Amino acid sequence: MMRTHPSGTLRADNAGQTVTLAGWVARRRDHGGVIFIDLRDASGTAQVVFREGEMAERAHRLRSEFAVQVTGEVVRRPEGNENPDLPTGQIEVTATDLTVLSESAPLPFPLDEHTDVGEEIRLKYRYLDLRRSGPAAALRLRSAANRIARDVLEEREFVEVETPTLTRSTPEGARDFLVPARLRPGSWYALPQSPQLFKQLLMVAGLERYYQIARCYRDEDFRADRQPEFTQLDIEMSFVEQDDVIELGEEIVSALWSELADYQIPLPIPRLTYAEAMARYGSDKPDLRFGVELVDLTEFFADTPFRVFQAPYVGAVVMPGGASQPRKQLDAWQEWAKQRGARGLAYVLVDEDGSASERGPVVKNLSDAEREGLAKAAGAEPGDAIFFAAGHPSDARDLLGAARGEIARRVGLIDEDAWSFVWVVDAPMFEPIRDENSRDDDGNEVGWTAVHHPFTAPNQDWADRFEEAPDQALAYAYDIVCNGNEIGGGSIRIHRSDVQQRVFALLGMDEAEQREKFGFLLDAFQYGPPPHGGIAFGWDRACMLLAGSDSIRDVIAFPKSGGGYDPLTAAPAPITPEQRKEAGVDAVPPKAPAAASPAADEPPTKV
Amino acid sequence: MMRTHPSGTLRADNAGQTVTLAGWVARRRDHGGVIFIDLRDASGTAQVVFREGEMAERAHRLRSEFAVQVTGEVVRRPEGNENPDLPTGQIEVTATDLTVLSESAPLPFPLDEHTDVGEEIRLKYRYLDLRRSGPAAALRLRSAANRIARDVLEEREFVEVETPTLTRSTPEGARDFLVPARLRPGSWYALPQSPQLFKQLLMVAGLERYYQIARCYRDEDFRADRQPEFTQLDIEMSFVEQDDVIELGEEIVSALWSELADYQIPLPIPRLTYAEAMARYGSDKPDLRFGVELVDLTEFFADTPFRVFQAPYVGAVVMPGGASQPRKQLDAWQEWAKQRGARGLAYVLVDEDGSASERGPVVKNLSDAEREGLAKAAGAEPGDAIFFAAGHPSDARDLLGAARGEIARRVGLIDEDAWSFVWVVDAPMFEPIRDENSRDDDGNEVGWTAVHHPFTAPNQDWADRFEEAPDQALAYAYDIVCNGNEIGGGSIRIHRSDVQQRVFALLGMDEAEQREKFGFLLDAFQYGPPPHGGIAFGWDRACMLLAGSDSIRDVIAFPKSGGGYDPLTAAPAPITPEQRKEAGVDAVPPKAPAAASPAADEPPTKV
Repeated sequence: MMRTHPSGTLRADNAGQTVTLAGWVARRRDHGGVIFIDLRDASGTAQVVFREGEMAERAHRLRSEFAVQVTGEVVRRPEGNENPDLPTGQIEVTATDLTVLSESAPLPFPLDEHTDVGEEIRLKYRYLDLRRSGPAAALRLRSAANRIARDVLEEREFVEVETPTLTRSTPEGARDFLVPARLRPGSWYALPQSPQLFKQLLMVAGLERYYQIARCYRDEDFRADRQPEFTQLDIEMSFVEQDDVIELGEEIVSALWSELADYQIPLPIPRLTYAEAMARYGSDKPDLRFGVELVDLTEFFADTPFRVFQAPYVGAVVMPGGASQPRKQLDAWQEWAKQRGARGLAYVLVDEDGSASERGPVVKNLSDAEREGLAKAAGAEPGDAIFFAAGHPSDARDLLGAARGEIARRVGLIDEDAWSFVWVVDAPMFEPIRDENSRDDDGNEVGWTAVHHPFTAPNQDWADRFEEAPDQALAYAYDIVCNGNEIGGGSIRIHRSDVQQRVFALLGMDEAEQREKFGFLLDAFQYGPPPHGGIAFGWDRACMLLAGSDSIRDVIAFPKSGGGYDPLTAAPAPITPEQRKEAGVDAVPPKAPAAASPAADEPPTKV
Repeated sequence: MMRTHPSGTLRADNAGQTVTLAGWVARRRDHGGVIFIDLRDASGTAQVVFREGEMAERAHRLRSEFAVQVTGEVVRRPEGNENPDLPTGQIEVTATDLTVLSESAPLPFPLDEHTDVGEEIRLKYRYLDLRRSGPAAALRLRSAANRIARDVLEEREFVEVETPTLTRSTPEGARDFLVPARLRPGSWYALPQSPQLFKQLLMVAGLERYYQIARCYRDEDFRADRQPEFTQLDIEMSFVEQDDVIELGEEIVSALWSELADYQIPLPIPRLTYAEAMARYGSDKPDLRFGVELVDLTEFFADTPFRVFQAPYVGAVVMPGGASQPRKQLDAWQEWAKQRGARGLAYVLVDEDGSASERGPVVKNLSDAEREGLAKAAGAEPGDAIFFAAGHPSDARDLLGAARGEIARRVGLIDEDAWSFVWVVDAPMFEPIRDENSRDDDGNEVGWTAVHHPFTAPNQDWADRFEEAPDQALAYAYDIVCNGNEIGGGSIRIHRSDVQQRVFALLGMDEAEQREKFGFLLDAFQYGPPPHGGIAFGWDRACMLLAGSDSIRDVIAFPKSGGGYDPLTAAPAPITPEQRKEAGVDAVPPKAPAAASPAADEPPTKV
């Protein structure tokens, strides 16, 4: 090693020792010929002094972020010069030798904690950005999170298994990233959206307890908090029921938050049913750090003269003190709602006497009884605003749930130091596909999509009859939510191939398509598959929350910026015609998938 | 949990307890109406007895590999019926309840340890193959290897960091796998051949100690022991010298072999220089479990009349007892050499009196003095065979090194239970490109390629002058070799951008190409890069050796077979025209790379 001690570990006890340090010049000060530098390495910072004469002269050329090696004697700082804010503040190192290991050009931005340069430039120079203590700490925290989760899992004899990342494309849900297979021109690998199928196969294989911190890939349109590659802590267990997986999930999050956020999560973590979460919070990932809840006013408005409220569902959410908002702010809410795809956000203000104010466009459409009873029915106090949404229950609740969050932010209801955890359970198996292509001649929705994924097991009430009422059938599925973020989710899986085929059929896959896409899974289920289930934690998001950050990019070493672009390496980039030719991108694919198989020992439908 | 106890944990102490087990029917025996099954789960096997009556009747339908849940009472086996070979052999479980969790179709191959079905069929049904104890143990061993290595690294405060896998193509060495970037039509990501550049950037970032169990990708032509995706334990450290990295590497392998192979590696592991390894063993990864060495006979044959031996290098390797080989075997050696691309393998047999035998085509070409002195010069005993290679030293040594291994196998010199570890150090920086395109008008080799990779630092003797004699310049590079397998390799890296540019230039890259491919690295080196170095272990191969296996496929959960094909999922496969269109495969790339960048804050050469 080029050092005898990490700089940040020096204490008064080291006084008198000759030490060699190596690190970066964090700051240089020139005090009348004596040069002081703060020498920074991964362990912290120590003050190095270059006294008059040769050493000071040699230190003169030092600039910020030069990498240096310094030998010197540790001495106690003169009385009065100690720095109690610094762990090494009792001492300084009087340099007797200096080696410049490398120099630094002037920095593109200052490396202090308060720097506020644009993200694109920080990512382009990520290797400088990460020299700042905040970004560096976020990466170290993530490494610790890995360790803590693994400790829990290894204590319970989970086996860490790497699953393939060059695998088969099964187009559904998000788009797959594709990789041309040079050795089989015309054929392509896909990068996996998750290890889902492989971990289920590992359960069929009798592994019983699997985990992996797994890279996953989804070729989605850019959204603020999405990366084309992301990481999940992926877990699967055999011979378990929902409560077993939930209990394990709780042990993992409780170990993480205890060690990294110094917070003891009260266990067991409360559970909400999906129906209750939607009804009370308008979200399947409710933020429970504040109490505002949705109110169902459908009954209340059953006989309303107001056309807009003559709807299958009318709900409301109350903004405490919202009646004092000026017209401009109330208009801004309309803008906010429109940006979310709603027509607007109906509101009624509650006067100081508790009655509905005449302000606003809604109130004049209401009956007298409605005006009078509204505040009570909505649970509003004098001075509050009541926001409404009416229409399809899921759309309306979605809008109200978003309004609930926006209210909390505007009114300041969120304690930023608080932690709230909740399991959302009893999710529905299916939801209708709500687009024009999935309607019958009468305009009814006829297509179904899986709320979790098509491998999720119906609960025992529905296993034999989910086809009777797909929108009501419930699954053994569970999501864990932290402060309004889904940080993990899982389910008990289907392990019977007949049930799996019925689910595929309900989702509109005929037998040929089932075999083509998932034949290997259905085959595996022929051979004594164990009941199994699991969970996957969105590791980027979990680490983000633990780091107290509000972007997953902060806990990713080299994140992509908008559109999947890497400002550091300028990836993606054009390829050469030679690369294109070699990769077989333009090869004509063989006629039938079976032709791509060298294994002639099975009929094509088995491949 | 669907069980109270893992089957394999039951002991005589459990007698009298009512337990619920869950697992697979490994074997079923019918003894006059009483049915015995071996119930297998991940922990082991226990015997379950279904006595006459209802239970026996229900158990009658059980077949191999049904998944079952059994409740019953643990009883001591009747005296004389204990099975001392089985940990649970003192007890059996008298079933009082039986639930068939799932049935199994007849198996495509029997799941015993002696099964010897083809690999293609084992991989197609990998989920059954892994129910066998050997394959399952290999995966569990690999998981343990991960834990052991991480424990060493975390004890030393290494930070685990995930580096990107959708990154920039830098075509050199092996081919990159490519991924079309839908959001930037005409641009492509590449899957990384290793995290090399990112880990170096993490050192520039001040992380100081990085590790990752990293997935890597190389689109190479199929070779028996290669996979398109593979895993390395990837490590990088700052402010270190070669000995620091070697010491860490030794701690990791010694922890692995101690815990998983019950072998204490004598430390420090001996070191051979690259030159010595090539001269004595004809290999940069010599197997030192046996002692046969190459003998340099160039001097000995300096004045030889034999045309073939009038060469820049003549070497030999001795096969103990090889003189007794019949003509047919000696011919087979010629075939063996030809398959390796050599013209043949010259040999001389040593008679019982120590003189050169008249048998074979070479001896008659030698001078009397050569015949007489040969056995002594080659270190051969009476009854041995001497094999020769003459020509370009590296070709000839390569052939002799391979012959050395083949001799050891044929003569049985290898102790299969032995472990031999060696570091090969002082590797050359460069080697000439030996193809027609890299010769000048006089036929001299003029192109150079990096022996390790272009980021490897020249040692201090050569840092300022490697251009003077590129074939002699040595690097701070080190490989660790176990039983003739390279299981890890690394180097101290170049951290000065001037040195890095000189290396790039020697490798034939002009400045524009340097900037286009590695501009971001050269940029990073402008800002106080620390001296750094690291190592990467070929994790598949290391685990293979630890598992006592001879194929890396045994320690991979779902390996590809020949040509990168997955017999289980039938990947790769053709994609749909819609996928192709969406992925932007056929989009015309923008004219210049810079056009692909949204960051307009830098001149194009910086991108």
